[in-house]
Amino acid sequence: MSRNFTSDNVTPACAAVMAAVEAANQGPVPSYGGDAHTVRLAALIAELFETEAAVFPVTTGTAANALALAQITPPYGTVLCYENAHVATDECGAPEFFMGGGKLTGLPAADGKIRAEQVAAVVALADSMGVHHVKPAAVSLTQATEWGTVYTLDQVAELSAMAQRHGLRVHMDGARFANALVHLGCSPAAATWRSGVDVLSLGATKNGALCAELVVFFDPALARDFDRRRKRAGHLWSKLRFLSAQLVAYLEDDLWLRNAAHANAMAATLAAGLAALPGVRLLQSVDANELFVALPERRVAALERGGFGFYRWPGCAVAGDETAIRLVTSYATEARDVAALLDAARGMAPA
Amino acid sequence: MSRNFTSDNVTPACAAVMAAVEAANQGPVPSYGGDAHTVRLAALIAELFETEAAVFPVTTGTAANALALAQITPPYGTVLCYENAHVATDECGAPEFFMGGGKLTGLPAADGKIRAEQVAAVVALADSMGVHHVKPAAVSLTQATEWGTVYTLDQVAELSAMAQRHGLRVHMDGARFANALVHLGCSPAAATWRSGVDVLSLGATKNGALCAELVVFFDPALARDFDRRRKRAGHLWSKLRFLSAQLVAYLEDDLWLRNAAHANAMAATLAAGLAALPGVRLLQSVDANELFVALPERRVAALERGGFGFYRWPGCAVAGDETAIRLVTSYATEARDVAALLDAARGMAPA
Amino acid sequence: MSRNFTSDNVTPACAAVMAAVEAANQGPVPSYGGDAHTVRLAALIAELFETEAAVFPVTTGTAANALALAQITPPYGTVLCYENAHVATDECGAPEFFMGGGKLTGLPAADGKIRAEQVAAVVALADSMGVHHVKPAAVSLTQATEWGTVYTLDQVAELSAMAQRHGLRVHMDGARFANALVHLGCSPAAATWRSGVDVLSLGATKNGALCAELVVFFDPALARDFDRRRKRAGHLWSKLRFLSAQLVAYLEDDLWLRNAAHANAMAATLAAGLAALPGVRLLQSVDANELFVALPERRVAALERGGFGFYRWPGCAVAGDETAIRLVTSYATEARDVAALLDAARGMAPA
Amino acid sequence: MSRNFTSDNVTPACAAVMAAVEAANQGPVPSYGGDAHTVRLAALIAELFETEAAVFPVTTGTAANALALAQITPPYGTVLCYENAHVATDECGAPEFFMGGGKLTGLPAADGKIRAEQVAAVVALADSMGVHHVKPAAVSLTQATEWGTVYTLDQVAELSAMAQRHGLRVHMDGARFANALVHLGCSPAAATWRSGVDVLSLGATKNGALCAELVVFFDPALARDFDRRRKRAGHLWSKLRFLSAQLVAYLEDDLWLRNAAHANAMAATLAAGLAALPGVRLLQSVDANELFVALPERRVAALERGGFGFYRWPGCAVAGDETAIRLVTSYATEARDVAALLDAARGMAPA
Repeated sequence: MSRNFTSDNVTPACAAVMAAVEAANQGPVPSYGGDAHTVRLAALIAELFETEAAVFPVTTGTAANALALAQITPPYGTVLCYENAHVATDECGAPEFFMGGGKLTGLPAADGKIRAEQVAAVVALADSMGVHHVKPAAVSLTQATEWGTVYTLDQVAELSAMAQRHGLRVHMDGARFANALVHLGCSPAAATWRSGVDVLSLGATKNGALCAELVVFFDPALARDFDRRRKRAGHLWSKLRFLSAQLVAYLEDDLWLRNAAHANAMAATLAAGLAALPGVRLLQSVDANELFVALPERRVAALERGGFGFYRWPGCAVAGDETAIRLVTSYATEARDVAALLDAARGMAPA
Repeated sequence: MSRNFTSDNVTPACAAVMAAVEAANQGPVPSYGGDAHTVRLAALIAELFETEAAVFPVTTGTAANALALAQITPPYGTVLCYENAHVATDECGAPEFFMGGGKLTGLPAADGKIRAEQVAAVVALADSMGVHHVKPAAVSLTQATEWGTVYTLDQVAELSAMAQRHGLRVHMDGARFANALVHLGCSPAAATWRSGVDVLSLGATKNGALCAELVVFFDPALARDFDRRRKRAGHLWSKLRFLSAQLVAYLEDDLWLRNAAHANAMAATLAAGLAALPGVRLLQSVDANELFVALPERRVAALERGGFGFYRWPGCAVAGDETAIRLVTSYATEARDVAALLDAARGMAPA
Repeated sequence: MSRNFTSDNVTPACAAVMAAVEAANQGPVPSYGGDAHTVRLAALIAELFETEAAVFPVTTGTAANALALAQITPPYGTVLCYENAHVATDECGAPEFFMGGGKLTGLPAADGKIRAEQVAAVVALADSMGVHHVKPAAVSLTQATEWGTVYTLDQVAELSAMAQRHGLRVHMDGARFANALVHLGCSPAAATWRSGVDVLSLGATKNGALCAELVVFFDPALARDFDRRRKRAGHLWSKLRFLSAQLVAYLEDDLWLRNAAHANAMAATLAAGLAALPGVRLLQSVDANELFVALPERRVAALERGGFGFYRWPGCAVAGDETAIRLVTSYATEARDVAALLDAARGMAPA
Repeated sequence: MSRNFTSDNVTPACAAVMAAVEAANQGPVPSYGGDAHTVRLAALIAELFETEAAVFPVTTGTAANALALAQITPPYGTVLCYENAHVATDECGAPEFFMGGGKLTGLPAADGKIRAEQVAAVVALADSMGVHHVKPAAVSLTQATEWGTVYTLDQVAELSAMAQRHGLRVHMDGARFANALVHLGCSPAAATWRSGVDVLSLGATKNGALCAELVVFFDPALARDFDRRRKRAGHLWSKLRFLSAQLVAYLEDDLWLRNAAHANAMAATLAAGLAALPGVRLLQSVDANELFVALPERRVAALERGGFGFYRWPGCAVAGDETAIRLVTSYATEARDVAALLDAARGMAPA
């Protein structure tokens, strides 16, 4: 049982993934990807996404995002993204580093979802400034977003179409892609390349792996020399099987979907329970496994005293006596964890 | 039993390390290093190296080296190293990338060991050229070297003293540091900071871990903001415990030394056996776990036909009918593996 | 006579500067700064700014800014500036390139002047995010601003004090520094280092030179190895005297101040004349040599038909029938040029 | 009269170039290249080189080289060049900086000319190492070389063909291109694109300009977005006409060829005179305007006492009592300057 709702990255690896790592501990095995797990991974992605794809396992979401963006953005280019996207605020400048000095152009979005019109406006401005301005080269959208919302397929498609019209590539930061996919209830292909996505950072760490993310290029030609980018960033493991094996286990037998469905369900239960309390309101639609909630400060303080872990969240529009918090569920969240938090919140209500 | 002598990176993780990873699979646990394993690791290094140190676990040797070099070299600087050092030829330009365009100045060295006089000569040339030339900022030495030799303590100290005299920092690429340490028979402190080393890339992957290397700064002040460099390179794991736990297990109970001692012993046995054969000669002193051997081509071909794995090695001074090969032993090499190779080599001798 | 009010960078070089270039055309002369003009320049700056300073002539304002910012900001750092500052929008990512992937954090400012509280807020946010966020390392303010306003000495001092309190350096983009200085009516020292500025990009090109800007570090220790940064950026001229001679002529005999005073006076006359017209309003205080004016669209079109050159300016809050334009005067603007534009504007008024 | 033989970068601008700068000092004139001089320059290059080309004036040879190399080399790539090429040793890492961490692979060459076989060998080695090694992407040759020699057309063509065979682009560092061209006696087209050169750094500063170099892409498609690279490096002048006007004057009326022919002739006279002296020998073929000469140390010291300026040159194979020096002539060297040096050298002979 856990009272920790701070993040889905505090979770252990799930049993199937850990078992896969153990099973991969044979030897000797060819290094740098010449192993059966890495080969199997590529086939599995092709099957799940219904297309040939070039895949590159890496260790962290920051690596996946920064490498992917550097591949599709020249050093004199810019990536259009939500102004508080993870790539913009939580990666210590990794995209800019990997791009060799390229930029991110942050766009406002109350629900974390950028819009096609915003892309058009940035492109128009850049066009008017010519060589003095960085060149819009890519759009990066986070799916599920940093606010726990999920782009609809239409929203993704509209954004991608606008990007494509202006020669921009589309990157999807899918640190919580499985949670979004479960919410959308569509195929992985529909959620990505069929909606115009060129490259996906497919997260696994938050949803059951030890340390595994996957960069997926839906057009293998777009991945030209990407292997060298990964290598020169120190992100090519010699014993790559230990990374690939995690991803194979994660993707096989729908484990990723089952884990995400559970996390989403826990979030939904939590959201419903909280929203029913007087003085409590949800700040965003709870589409995936993150909740942003405004509560009276005394309730927040009481939950903290009760040993519950979560973040007070800046940047939310709240009333003077309200405090915004973020709660995150995961594949490892148990129903009793949610019940305990709701009980605690209810218990305080009369106070 | 294995006939694979290609590299020590084809090995599995050793049992104690894998057990530690499994044991670390609890949760929830604070992310990004706020876990007990990472704390324990720092204490363990301080104890083993007899000094306060700043330690940063990363995934690959390339990451460890490139991050460390970027920390001690400005973008207009150069790192002096052996011309065929791993950092110069096998990391796809990672040091240059991480330094932001800094350079490596390659120095010739028949045995892989660069000399203090070479450092002095490069510094003198740079001084004579002033602002037109990159600034010598660091020396990087590989211990054990790329040729399987080991710098003596005096050699390290002399090199470091020369570096220090000219304001250069000293980095040690210790991908096979344990093998060198066992050969030297000295303390970790003597092998590093007491000999003038500022920062060490301490390898574990080749010697029993899944994917763990450690950057060790012997002067914590030198590590200022290094955590941001690691983060922006995508090398800060959210579930860092899985990395730290490997290193703790690796360093505890002398596991690293026992593994390395075994690998070195296997190499010594192999070297002695081969050297006793007519027409076979060792190209370098076998100080650690790598052998560079010249054999008649027909013997090499026969070993390959016998299923033995190893690399034909370019860049060696051999006679026309000789072929140079590299053989690598590891903690996982068994005495019978060595015996099998020697038997095969002997069996061919009469031919 | 000229109807061109597009920018002060369309001007010729003024006579004294051109004469100095011609006078410098002797030879042979030591290259790379070992000439008398460069030596004289350093002495002149020390005298004018009443302090020892390290000075580095370069060709463009972009080079001056980007080099200066890279000197005071690590690659994992960020520079706080006005969101539409020249460094942020008009230099095609030069600061990010020179910093090696560092960032700019854009701050809103209706008059182009950022405030100390904004700096404090960014620092507080970054502190709360730790290693995941880039490190606030510098503040860059433009003086005169991109909106033709001028920071008061108190505003500069307050901003600098806040920066200093948090360990940030202060850069001043002085592409139009002389115009600001004339407006302030204070000494160069008061306008810069006595108000807390660490490094100044001192522009000359817009105010009478061919192609000369000067990076001035008020603490020479802060300029350590800056000469190498300049060299590796291709900004060290071999025949540096031709650059230094421009700057000497520019700064001697108050030429820079006289030129700027004239440009400012032309702007003031133009502003007064326009503001007196019905339906015309100034969008910003006209402190230097740039005017941002809202006019009825038919007036704007008429001025264009009359052959007057200027930019329609995006990003201004104007009414539906208004169009915002930018008018720039310079040292070369003549009183009759201003009169002609005002006549034309008045002539249309009745329409 | 001058005794300065240190370099051709100590020269003044020649009269025609200075006159062109003065003539360009009109205004207002469109900035950033929208001027008639820049337009004229492009037409002139097309005419002289008999092909459409994309041309970009910049200030320094370092800028021209580094920008050109960054355009044709990815950040994970390497440029093959002579190990002591100007780009490798005299630009403080500019190419590496502009490439975003790419490398230079230095090749030995006694006469400064690299050979096709060397390119083939590097490519073969890189191929054998795969992703671990940087990708050979370009060849850079210096014409005339750093040793004052000139590649024959056949040598250039052979090198280019080999480069092309392996997908490498060819860059020519033509800091002294005019001197080479005069030596070859062929057309500019024959010396460059007809021999396989993709991009040329065409120098003017050493041969009569104030500060002008030109990057010439013989396939305009290869120059895509190069204007942004130039801008973000701070190398786009606002008053670009002052740069373009220099180059127009330089290239018109064969001025560049006349200047270079004169410099070469002075070098030839000097070489012949020196070679006739006992104990003096030329270390390289004197094809252009640089001489590398071995003399008895007492002669060198005597010349220095006589007030002659030149560099003692490291890295030459000389006997114990010999000293190697470099002498450089220029368009501004007068016959009496050469005579004076020869007289001085002869006068010392008996000693």
